[in-house]
Amino acid sequence: MKDIYVKDVAALEDGTEVELKGWVHKIYDLGKISFVKLRDKTGIIQIVIDESLNVKLRLEMCIAVKGKKVKNEKAPEGIEVQVDELKVLGKTYYDKLPFAINAGKIKAALETQLDHRTISLRAPKITAVFKVQEKIADAFKDYLKGQNFTEVYTPKIIASGTEGGSELFTVNYFDHRAFLAQSPQFYKQMMVGSGFERIFEIGHAYRAELHNTYRHLNEYVSLDLEMGFIEDEFEIMDLEEGFMNYLFKYIKKECSAELKLYNIELPEEVKIPRITLFDAQEILLKEYGKRSPKGNIDNEGEKLFAEYVKKEYGSDFVFLTKYPAAKRPMYTMPDDEIEGATRSFDLIYKGLEITTGGQRIHDYEELVANIAKMGFKTEEFEFYTDNFRYGMPPHGGLAIGLERLTMKILGLDNIREAALLPRDMKRITP
Amino acid sequence: MKDIYVKDVAALEDGTEVELKGWVHKIYDLGKISFVKLRDKTGIIQIVIDESLNVKLRLEMCIAVKGKKVKNEKAPEGIEVQVDELKVLGKTYYDKLPFAINAGKIKAALETQLDHRTISLRAPKITAVFKVQEKIADAFKDYLKGQNFTEVYTPKIIASGTEGGSELFTVNYFDHRAFLAQSPQFYKQMMVGSGFERIFEIGHAYRAELHNTYRHLNEYVSLDLEMGFIEDEFEIMDLEEGFMNYLFKYIKKECSAELKLYNIELPEEVKIPRITLFDAQEILLKEYGKRSPKGNIDNEGEKLFAEYVKKEYGSDFVFLTKYPAAKRPMYTMPDDEIEGATRSFDLIYKGLEITTGGQRIHDYEELVANIAKMGFKTEEFEFYTDNFRYGMPPHGGLAIGLERLTMKILGLDNIREAALLPRDMKRITP
Repeated sequence: MKDIYVKDVAALEDGTEVELKGWVHKIYDLGKISFVKLRDKTGIIQIVIDESLNVKLRLEMCIAVKGKKVKNEKAPEGIEVQVDELKVLGKTYYDKLPFAINAGKIKAALETQLDHRTISLRAPKITAVFKVQEKIADAFKDYLKGQNFTEVYTPKIIASGTEGGSELFTVNYFDHRAFLAQSPQFYKQMMVGSGFERIFEIGHAYRAELHNTYRHLNEYVSLDLEMGFIEDEFEIMDLEEGFMNYLFKYIKKECSAELKLYNIELPEEVKIPRITLFDAQEILLKEYGKRSPKGNIDNEGEKLFAEYVKKEYGSDFVFLTKYPAAKRPMYTMPDDEIEGATRSFDLIYKGLEITTGGQRIHDYEELVANIAKMGFKTEEFEFYTDNFRYGMPPHGGLAIGLERLTMKILGLDNIREAALLPRDMKRITP
Repeated sequence: MKDIYVKDVAALEDGTEVELKGWVHKIYDLGKISFVKLRDKTGIIQIVIDESLNVKLRLEMCIAVKGKKVKNEKAPEGIEVQVDELKVLGKTYYDKLPFAINAGKIKAALETQLDHRTISLRAPKITAVFKVQEKIADAFKDYLKGQNFTEVYTPKIIASGTEGGSELFTVNYFDHRAFLAQSPQFYKQMMVGSGFERIFEIGHAYRAELHNTYRHLNEYVSLDLEMGFIEDEFEIMDLEEGFMNYLFKYIKKECSAELKLYNIELPEEVKIPRITLFDAQEILLKEYGKRSPKGNIDNEGEKLFAEYVKKEYGSDFVFLTKYPAAKRPMYTMPDDEIEGATRSFDLIYKGLEITTGGQRIHDYEELVANIAKMGFKTEEFEFYTDNFRYGMPPHGGLAIGLERLTMKILGLDNIREAALLPRDMKRITP
């Protein structure tokens, strides 16, 4: 077992004996001695190997070294380890690495990097993405647990789709046809009703969308929450705004090195303007001559509107509110004031939708009527609607795409860069 | 939004105005006044409703009440709320509840309880199961994060099965046939190799096993970990033993009320005997006249052996070690000392296997040779084995079934009781 990491060496006294284990990151072979960069989970350190040790190192070999920590002004960070003993722990079996990971930015197409994901992930700048991603999920969890939310695990194998069966992957489940959940929507609501009141889930969601774009994955991690006993959808927006403030503080503290690597400065405070979809469409038309599709804003519109909000409000975020009922799922609560609108919202961050949320219908009869009105067969949803017969509190919630949020925080170009092992229309390996 | 919960009322001064929201748990209608038990996420409290408020309450209705907190020696816990205002937040639409949840143990078959899961979950004793389950997952996460493990999310849609395709659900993935991951095994190992060194994942796993027993689910939550730079499989056992000690302390602290509800006393310290499978088989034969299947112990054997270990070692746990290679997957590290054995183990807790783990083969050539030796097509596993060409440290890991651990800690009879919404051969709803 490892008991010391590269990051711990700097604090040790000069001359201390250490045993380090990691990967051979770089080799400068000077004949009599070699300067080698050893990489582990926590950093990179220079080690000095005398030819008398008689080992033939290759890049990315796994090794264990014993030696003395010494100061050396010429070494990076001013320290190095003079190796007395070296053991190869993991041999290599390649002619040539698929690409270099020790020379700054990887010079290979993203697809090639993903084909060799366990190599590209070794590059410190790419590892950093997943450090940040882990901390986003931690922040989500911490923030919600602090507000009396319960974490749940709901099934991903389901009998009917949330929105009537489109965009679902089918699973051969014994003698049945089942589906992969495109969101935990139904179950989140049911868990609120079953007495948990406030729940969240961090889990996979599946979309059989025929999109192969920079912002779509067919399997992604969804940060989902649902909260009972609300007055309106604005409480859900308040909660998300609170989360974003918590998150940015958390990441600044936990991931300062990673943010620096990506030249990211996060704002001190997040204050998110709330603009109705209708108003946003009007602004797009007036300011940019941009026409929007009925009841929505397209990808180009999202980007233009983000520009506008940045200019007018100084914010990277904007809530678009009051989407029309025709464009929202059948469980969305109708708005009291605006005819045909709903108590719903999207959150746009740097021009990309990262959240959909809103208040849901909680009255059984209203829900069943709305399902019928939208043209679905009510009996197909009885496993869901029947739960609403037994006292369901007013409630609402939201979902944040973890990869999208990671991508936008770090300014990545493609969502595949924010997934350890992305799944898209063409990729189910590695 | 709720700002006060039932559990907070006791600490308030007498006469304080409170607004509580929750479900109608029990009604004693005395005509002029009614004593009602109001239930929320945190507990149950008596509220007193005068007939002048003119509301017809039904069980499980969602209500909000405003009133004064007062002392009343006759009330449970000695306090109640005298209601001035009452609002129905969630109406009910039923003729009769499927079963009573306010009269102690639910008098309905488990299948009926699961058919109406959002009702059975409202019973405080059943809610308690998921409080404990949540804390188990929290403890796993805390314990591992404290030891430099990284949390990861790996794909559940995969191209080939871990053990060659048996017991896999197939997914129609665009033009391909894909599978649901029966474990994150391959990806855990790959992530260790890609520089994370130590990783864990809490996620769903899928087994298309044709078993409908008290201890099988077809979709379950797996607590998975994998650790690089180990010497042997005993380090993985040490880690798990450490986790169990951490877990029990954690649960005793966080879930004392829930443990009390189930009459569970957890031991102060967990010290787990380690016995080879061969020795265990010999003991079973000698002590109980019980013959075991070749290279394994069956369900009855596990129970008998648990009895033996409890008697001889005073332990609810036992590690069975050194399983034969023929009974372990192709990635299992062969043992150096015992011919035909592997560096593997199971953890049995109160007579049920809750963990499988061990050291894995990390050398590329050895792995490929072992895959071929076990009769699989090596080319089908190239997306996995190719990663071993680039320096893989010695490593091992384990997986704990979350529902099994929950079930055994609380002494539940059926694993379905430890899943919010279980999936088995016959159940994909609700």
